Amino acid sequence: MTLPSLSDIHSAHVRIRPFIHKTPVLTSGQIDRIFGCSLFFKCENFQKVGAFKFRGATNAVLSLSAEEKERGVVTHSSGNHAAALALAASMNGVKARIVMPETAPVVKKNAVAGYGAEITFCKPTLQSREETTHRIIEETGAVLVHPYDNFNVICGQGTAAAELLEEHPDLDIIVAPIGGGGLMSGTSTCVKGLSPETLVIGAEPVNANDAWKSFKTGILTPSVNPLTVADGLLTSLSELTFAVVKKNVDDIFMVSEDSIIECMLLVWERMKIVIEPSSATVLAAVKENNEFFSGRKTGLIISGGNVDFRKLPFSQQR
Amino acid sequence: MTLPSLSDIHSAHVRIRPFIHKTPVLTSGQIDRIFGCSLFFKCENFQKVGAFKFRGATNAVLSLSAEEKERGVVTHSSGNHAAALALAASMNGVKARIVMPETAPVVKKNAVAGYGAEITFCKPTLQSREETTHRIIEETGAVLVHPYDNFNVICGQGTAAAELLEEHPDLDIIVAPIGGGGLMSGTSTCVKGLSPETLVIGAEPVNANDAWKSFKTGILTPSVNPLTVADGLLTSLSELTFAVVKKNVDDIFMVSEDSIIECMLLVWERMKIVIEPSSATVLAAVKENNEFFSGRKTGLIISGGNVDFRKLPFSQQR
Repeated sequence: MTLPSLSDIHSAHVRIRPFIHKTPVLTSGQIDRIFGCSLFFKCENFQKVGAFKFRGATNAVLSLSAEEKERGVVTHSSGNHAAALALAASMNGVKARIVMPETAPVVKKNAVAGYGAEITFCKPTLQSREETTHRIIEETGAVLVHPYDNFNVICGQGTAAAELLEEHPDLDIIVAPIGGGGLMSGTSTCVKGLSPETLVIGAEPVNANDAWKSFKTGILTPSVNPLTVADGLLTSLSELTFAVVKKNVDDIFMVSEDSIIECMLLVWERMKIVIEPSSATVLAAVKENNEFFSGRKTGLIISGGNVDFRKLPFSQQR
Repeated sequence: MTLPSLSDIHSAHVRIRPFIHKTPVLTSGQIDRIFGCSLFFKCENFQKVGAFKFRGATNAVLSLSAEEKERGVVTHSSGNHAAALALAASMNGVKARIVMPETAPVVKKNAVAGYGAEITFCKPTLQSREETTHRIIEETGAVLVHPYDNFNVICGQGTAAAELLEEHPDLDIIVAPIGGGGLMSGTSTCVKGLSPETLVIGAEPVNANDAWKSFKTGILTPSVNPLTVADGLLTSLSELTFAVVKKNVDDIFMVSEDSIIECMLLVWERMKIVIEPSSATVLAAVKENNEFFSGRKTGLIISGGNVDFRKLPFSQQR
């Protein structure tokens, strides 16, 4: 099994740079004061399709051979990767077929359809997603671009951390959410290559803590029917992402559902930017481990901003 | 009655520049495509206290004499001006007393208290606000800083348009929300001074359309118990702001409650920034008058981003 290297991430960056946004790194004096920290938010919510996933998907599409581009791409995704692959494909004249759980947020379904991809709905289980995807591959010859268990996707995701460290080379810690491990694999490979002293921390919902379990036991342990408000983090590590995480990640911090929602609202209210629950896990990790972060310069990868505002995870007063 | 001039706004800008944020001007290819326009969002939601009101309040506080600073300031406000005056006062060692309607959004009450101001609650009527305020003035000698019927406040508010035109001098139209008329008085004075060919349009909820009525009839006609989701626009023009609006504003477009909510959600979803309903009136004006704006470069003053997320003006699916 070949693991990505820093130079693979550099190559990906050169390849995708004309297509992606270089997203801003924001700070908030108010949030720094609340937590007694010094935080740098790498805002991939402002990335195309509203999520870092566009980086990996673009790298995967641009890495296809001419013959593969003819056959098109297919993937299964809970949302952001679907939109990302749909747009990356359409920007490069490649047909995209997307398998989505019928329970995906409306805003994500609309985004995928808007980018001109062909959607096939499946049951919200890993098994149903994979079976539907394999059927499409057999019928059409489309190339699978897995949301995270894919070398080129991982390399693309790592470019967000590369931009963050370019702007702020002296970060003591970088925190990224961990779901299937694509973002964390790219991030940790990049950080340990560019700045070995910088600690890499994963933030994971306690309700979907397969990565934490796998990391602590050394045995790949997928989640069974996880349920978390961080709907981008329901997936489990693959052999590939687990190998990278084991090698490069310093620790994984679990966060509660309450902390995720509280920190999401805090960012909306204080920074006036929209981040999705999966992104709020990184600030929740700071909140729940205040002493660890106190006095250190910490970069937070804000993974995306796709929220279904008509179905919010907190109660409304009437 | 002395009306503010462009040079008054320039002086205010010099005075307040060390204290305010120079907010970004953002664009959205997606929203431009939806409306067939070219829109430039001046994002005062990223201003200190989350609203343009900090500009006017700061100018008012910095314009006080030493003796007036001793006595402190007082105001009545539905929210953003209250927080703005509280912070501007505390940054300059001046005591602030704030009269707020007991119905104000929780997020705005918390903000004012957080800036160290003394809050007195009143009934949510203009009469109750003014009586409570006058009582405080009699008891303490505090200087009234009216939210909009104040020369220095108007001059401060005009500096947002000055920054917008500095970055984009070739705008065909500038749209700002119109409530009490402070922002619109400053904006229109600035625009007609710097770029007389640029049209100045007010956006006003049809449910609080006193400015539209006054503008169309030439007779100052305050609203009676207006009810709109745009809670920053419940106030009516004063003699001073009406005089400026009559002189400098080209037209006022009324917008529906549905358009305001739809456009607020559109900005949240597509731009990943939080704007409050009052700010969404400007995009609603573009939506409801598409032909007028089509093919023209339009600047939109996004007045603020203070939203009570636990009390949203649209229905939630369960």
